[in-house]
Amino acid sequence: MENPFNDIYFMKKALLEAEDAFEKGEIPVGAIIVIKDRIIARSHNLTELLNDVTAHAEMQAITAATNFLGGKYLTNCTLYVTLEPCQMCAGALYWSQISKIVYGASDDKRGFKTLGTTIHPKTEVVSGVLAKEASELMKRFFIEKRNLN
Amino acid sequence: MENPFNDIYFMKKALLEAEDAFEKGEIPVGAIIVIKDRIIARSHNLTELLNDVTAHAEMQAITAATNFLGGKYLTNCTLYVTLEPCQMCAGALYWSQISKIVYGASDDKRGFKTLGTTIHPKTEVVSGVLAKEASELMKRFFIEKRNLN
Repeated sequence: MENPFNDIYFMKKALLEAEDAFEKGEIPVGAIIVIKDRIIARSHNLTELLNDVTAHAEMQAITAATNFLGGKYLTNCTLYVTLEPCQMCAGALYWSQISKIVYGASDDKRGFKTLGTTIHPKTEVVSGVLAKEASELMKRFFIEKRNLN
Repeated sequence: MENPFNDIYFMKKALLEAEDAFEKGEIPVGAIIVIKDRIIARSHNLTELLNDVTAHAEMQAITAATNFLGGKYLTNCTLYVTLEPCQMCAGALYWSQISKIVYGASDDKRGFKTLGTTIHPKTEVVSGVLAKEASELMKRFFIEKRNLN
């Protein structure tokens, strides 16, 4: 039997986090961190609520996961995030030595790929998982925001 | 009369923070953020103590300064940091739209300049302020660490 705990399963959990962000008026990005099919961190963007540009979903997830594990490194962990990480988050992931990054929608303007941020050589990157769902959530957010202003 | 609150004056304050980090067994990097000659954030590297790779001096300083100001952006602010920021910190500084970054020693391996991290177009960067002092503190830290192990 195929393992039900695949990238799509976990990305759906990250999308639930992104929806939570949406409801709070935050740019809807969600993240989770998984070790051995177990979710050890869940987070979503909180930059507006916390008035803090560093409060991206990934940054909070890294802090929560390392806190859970009691160590600085995220070896054997996978991050699922609905949007391509920015250079700050990719830089933090570099330091964490995380094993795998799976993201949904691409960010062609401020994503780490476009900006050429260095990823740790031990880190595998997978892109495009449930990209359409993540991208549509973002689009809906910006349309609603525009209509409210 | 020359303004005594110049880059050297403030970098000395950042160096005091770096020395605090040293005494805690942290890689000695210190940072402060200044607005109109007033220090609104002081911090030093706490990655070991907090078991958190995101706890660089600059990241904490950004969070503290935005908290003080009650807004997400650090327009009209200057960051003084004893070591060239890494790509994570430079990425965070990008989002903060900080007006000026002044750093001491260069980090030719993991600094944002070597790694080509994009800085906000509104941000001025000054390097090499009390670089020797910052660099010697780092060297002393790694020598002592090696001798203890």
